[in-house]
Amino acid sequence: MSKIRVAVLGASGYAGEELLRILLRHRHATVTAITSRSSAGKDVSTVFPRFTNSKLTFVMPDAAQLAKNCDVAILALPHGTATEYAIPLLESGVKVIDISADFRLKSTEKYKEYYKEDHPSPALLAKAVYGLPERYRGQLKSADLIACAGCYPTSVILPTSVLLAAGLVSPKGIVVASSSGVSGAGRKVDLPYIFPECNESFRAYGVVGHRHLPEIEQEMAFAAGESEIKINFIPHLIPMNRGINSTIVMDAAPGCTLDKIAEAYQKAYGNEQFVRILPAGRAADTKYVFMTNTCEIGFFLDARTNKVIVTSVIDNLTKGASGQAVQCMNIRFGIDEAEGLI
Amino acid sequence: MSKIRVAVLGASGYAGEELLRILLRHRHATVTAITSRSSAGKDVSTVFPRFTNSKLTFVMPDAAQLAKNCDVAILALPHGTATEYAIPLLESGVKVIDISADFRLKSTEKYKEYYKEDHPSPALLAKAVYGLPERYRGQLKSADLIACAGCYPTSVILPTSVLLAAGLVSPKGIVVASSSGVSGAGRKVDLPYIFPECNESFRAYGVVGHRHLPEIEQEMAFAAGESEIKINFIPHLIPMNRGINSTIVMDAAPGCTLDKIAEAYQKAYGNEQFVRILPAGRAADTKYVFMTNTCEIGFFLDARTNKVIVTSVIDNLTKGASGQAVQCMNIRFGIDEAEGLI
Amino acid sequence: MSKIRVAVLGASGYAGEELLRILLRHRHATVTAITSRSSAGKDVSTVFPRFTNSKLTFVMPDAAQLAKNCDVAILALPHGTATEYAIPLLESGVKVIDISADFRLKSTEKYKEYYKEDHPSPALLAKAVYGLPERYRGQLKSADLIACAGCYPTSVILPTSVLLAAGLVSPKGIVVASSSGVSGAGRKVDLPYIFPECNESFRAYGVVGHRHLPEIEQEMAFAAGESEIKINFIPHLIPMNRGINSTIVMDAAPGCTLDKIAEAYQKAYGNEQFVRILPAGRAADTKYVFMTNTCEIGFFLDARTNKVIVTSVIDNLTKGASGQAVQCMNIRFGIDEAEGLI
Amino acid sequence: MSKIRVAVLGASGYAGEELLRILLRHRHATVTAITSRSSAGKDVSTVFPRFTNSKLTFVMPDAAQLAKNCDVAILALPHGTATEYAIPLLESGVKVIDISADFRLKSTEKYKEYYKEDHPSPALLAKAVYGLPERYRGQLKSADLIACAGCYPTSVILPTSVLLAAGLVSPKGIVVASSSGVSGAGRKVDLPYIFPECNESFRAYGVVGHRHLPEIEQEMAFAAGESEIKINFIPHLIPMNRGINSTIVMDAAPGCTLDKIAEAYQKAYGNEQFVRILPAGRAADTKYVFMTNTCEIGFFLDARTNKVIVTSVIDNLTKGASGQAVQCMNIRFGIDEAEGLI
Repeated sequence: MSKIRVAVLGASGYAGEELLRILLRHRHATVTAITSRSSAGKDVSTVFPRFTNSKLTFVMPDAAQLAKNCDVAILALPHGTATEYAIPLLESGVKVIDISADFRLKSTEKYKEYYKEDHPSPALLAKAVYGLPERYRGQLKSADLIACAGCYPTSVILPTSVLLAAGLVSPKGIVVASSSGVSGAGRKVDLPYIFPECNESFRAYGVVGHRHLPEIEQEMAFAAGESEIKINFIPHLIPMNRGINSTIVMDAAPGCTLDKIAEAYQKAYGNEQFVRILPAGRAADTKYVFMTNTCEIGFFLDARTNKVIVTSVIDNLTKGASGQAVQCMNIRFGIDEAEGLI
Repeated sequence: MSKIRVAVLGASGYAGEELLRILLRHRHATVTAITSRSSAGKDVSTVFPRFTNSKLTFVMPDAAQLAKNCDVAILALPHGTATEYAIPLLESGVKVIDISADFRLKSTEKYKEYYKEDHPSPALLAKAVYGLPERYRGQLKSADLIACAGCYPTSVILPTSVLLAAGLVSPKGIVVASSSGVSGAGRKVDLPYIFPECNESFRAYGVVGHRHLPEIEQEMAFAAGESEIKINFIPHLIPMNRGINSTIVMDAAPGCTLDKIAEAYQKAYGNEQFVRILPAGRAADTKYVFMTNTCEIGFFLDARTNKVIVTSVIDNLTKGASGQAVQCMNIRFGIDEAEGLI
Repeated sequence: MSKIRVAVLGASGYAGEELLRILLRHRHATVTAITSRSSAGKDVSTVFPRFTNSKLTFVMPDAAQLAKNCDVAILALPHGTATEYAIPLLESGVKVIDISADFRLKSTEKYKEYYKEDHPSPALLAKAVYGLPERYRGQLKSADLIACAGCYPTSVILPTSVLLAAGLVSPKGIVVASSSGVSGAGRKVDLPYIFPECNESFRAYGVVGHRHLPEIEQEMAFAAGESEIKINFIPHLIPMNRGINSTIVMDAAPGCTLDKIAEAYQKAYGNEQFVRILPAGRAADTKYVFMTNTCEIGFFLDARTNKVIVTSVIDNLTKGASGQAVQCMNIRFGIDEAEGLI
Repeated sequence: MSKIRVAVLGASGYAGEELLRILLRHRHATVTAITSRSSAGKDVSTVFPRFTNSKLTFVMPDAAQLAKNCDVAILALPHGTATEYAIPLLESGVKVIDISADFRLKSTEKYKEYYKEDHPSPALLAKAVYGLPERYRGQLKSADLIACAGCYPTSVILPTSVLLAAGLVSPKGIVVASSSGVSGAGRKVDLPYIFPECNESFRAYGVVGHRHLPEIEQEMAFAAGESEIKINFIPHLIPMNRGINSTIVMDAAPGCTLDKIAEAYQKAYGNEQFVRILPAGRAADTKYVFMTNTCEIGFFLDARTNKVIVTSVIDNLTKGASGQAVQCMNIRFGIDEAEGLI
């Protein structure tokens, strides 16, 4: 079998680094181009010393040029810049997998509300398939444009969509307290992210109106069959490198039991390689998914308050970004879904 | 003025260490005895090298002996062991300040429900004043037995009691997601607490029925004037040494505004040295209370979901334990409330 | 090609976990048995939740039984217990790769000096090949018993042996200051290793006479062609999970230059996949070898003091333990040396 | 007694923050001015939220204005900018305590070699007293200009000067491997200092020719009575906030014993409040000096190699910067040397 030729656009951040780490051990893919405006012409090892032996050199991003050498382009670009590359690449027949948030929302209104500008290509928005394999595997098999699910959203949607779809929890009044390692902020050189400001610090941010909110609500509504769901989503920063924990509190629907929850999860994820459902009453732990593509889910029922509580963890750079992108790529190209990810 | 003679019981844990740190720079107190069953006869520096020059030696805990040399005994003993010392000490006229949870609950039923045994001294339970100065300063001035507020409870009760008392939030359906540094687990030698199991790990625990729950609910109910309040309280472990963050989500009552919240806090805490209210919309950060006796509180109003969200931070060993104990002591003995704590 | 059948003995520590992580993605090896006295009969996921889907169950270590099902046994047992299993396994024709220190020293006198007892099998000591592929690849190809190089020793021997062999540095007066992440202490439940005792702590230990000292000196002497070399080796504990840095200060031999050092390294390691030589004047960084099998080496020449200074980093659990074991196994069985390690 | 009026210049970094923390609880000092070019006009709490109740406002640094309101100015300015303020302040009769490196070297040649420019005021260089109380207390009592010892230098000079002066170690061939928490780099917003680049990272830097080298060598030479001493000093970065460890390897002089070392330390530091000498054979630990003004020293003798090994720890922001500045100020103004520092 000939190898899938992959172009990586915008590889100088942490998601780009993780993508390279995965692709360099992928047996059926080969990186044919890797772009960076700021580092074009330099060896990849100048940015990421761990790839010294990769023999890769950054090039300027040029869609026409890239289209000649790749079957798929994975975009790890800053939010708001994907469309510019996605359009010509798609027109040249290249599949596009976008790690940014640019194509995740179906509603152009929501996009404008949260990103403060009109979406540059509503047509692409409609065309994009949401890159969360456990929910959209069927559509992903033939998708030309894949909008990978975000990090927080992945950790929230995987555990909640099943319970909403099964009618085991109420779609009203859901509260999500999420916490992320600092790599979630990207490779950002800014005072709040220097070591002494993060170490021994734990703090909430984006308490009201975080940009991942509409994406989470959209997918919850789809799962629940509702036209709209409104939740509270409160992210926090943890003094660690990688990992997201989402603690989700929902009203139990009448008749909901721990057994029914376990059954619903077993039915939905029993055959999934990258979802691990814990026995009832055990909380998930970020360290057990560190540098893996797994989402680990623990669940609880509080009879006193009639709440279902779920804790869910992922590695924000793997299942929350680059691992998921490769999983989507594997599905799209019909190869073993776990290739490169074990 | 003659110095307050203080006996510290059970000083070999982190709360004991913090207590010594504070008392050794207290100008109006002197440590006359420090007990430890396991280290009796040894210099304090064998357990805490930082106190090499303190010239203190651990002694066996002997209430009769202690009573001769102290005005107040601060108990940093394991839960369930305070009564044994509190009774004879109180009978000898010694004031008792307990850092454990033994005298915090007013209801013997709740005590039995959460601690699985009858309370050894319901009379003392009735007599104890809850050691949270910002709520009970008046009673603390003449209290003989003070039950210091717990770490998680302090971080939750200070911000919520004001809003409940002012009728700005509903007492129903409150969700609290709290997170604590590892010193909160005590100086416990157990696999889950060794460094590689905690570092790069974030996980919930005690998701349903944590022992701090009835204490929080009790004080919330007192503040709200309700006979009972039921909440969800979900603690997590953060890979850092010290600090607690509590993120609290409540239904806004009709007419609640950010201004009214700010006003209520100003009224309640405007003159408090150890409470810092942030401007609306800014989240609290554990690093700003690290090794201080301060509780920092940030607040938000989410108009979409009609929720009030509060984030509140303390240092679990200072305001959450030993600092609070000294603050209570200062109040009880009529000296500057901040002595030793700045 | 039929897969190499691997038995893992003593897999409940961090080296065992890392070994499983690597072997489970190895294309030409299959784990046929995994032993643990304390967890026999339990699913591997009870100890390491990340391996939930591995379907592996711990068994009691029984050499006769193991010999029927494996081609090679990798021993991740506590020091001092390897001989008991190695003898019967070797007699049954099973290759043995030991991660402990039991077979690393050639001198029984040194063994007794540092381990305070006679070596249980001097014959095996003589037979064992030192498991450091970059130095002993030839012998490893046909070795029946492989004694994997230790973590600190690997980080010290790889950079120094080349310079000693080339006569670029003096074998006298070498000073090594090494520092290790806490996983280097094993999965040890002991007060000095709990999180609050390690976090924000950096301290030396084993300052005089650490057990890795004779191993380092032995290999340095072999490389230098000396009968004996005496060095100072001072290990420290770093508040992080994984990674070793060794900073090595040596007297430059007459005529030594940066170019000659670079040339010697290029000659020795230019074709090595798992050694990365940095340009002169750049220090190694543990984060660039985190969870990899690479040793990264930086070098300097201080003309003022006529010293060569080398800094060298590895991941103590990968190149310093389990990765190296698998690298040795790959060599012994004639397959791609990097299989499972990329 | 009227309070010492203190002006703090350049208080927006970590040393400035630590200085304020100490001064705000100092009973005999009051902060009369605090300057910051970038934050002039703003409340101190905008930069350091922990000082919300301090009522302090940043002002522009204006020497003439400052001279009217202060008895002493403590300079926490970037290296190279102290002279501009020191000259007019000294002329106005204000005592100057400089935390930067600007006045520490006695040799203008060395200054030029390491700082690449001529010293702006050789006269002040000659006049400055080195701010290391345990070595220069006598001169500090009447000093007008005090050049506080650097962080690394303090950790190295305190333990070595005693042994050099007593002739217990050789001044030749000394090797120092030091490691510092990230706050040692200042509040610097630069890629190498963001959290994910430091966490799980340990690396050397400034391996040859670090700027603290001439300062260390100068004081070693003074102590040893040598005209010049050349050492190797190799700093590293530790993933923690505060703390420096220096591991120092020296040749034992003939007749050197552990008892003689202990005796020399006892004689030099037996009455010092801020030096803690450990029993022979125990290594120092940064966590025992965290947020204190103490230097803890452990010592060893390796008979095999005839080396004396010392490990020494300080908190880089306290004894290594702001605590030391206040200790010097207390000495200069004739008050209790420990005021504000316990």
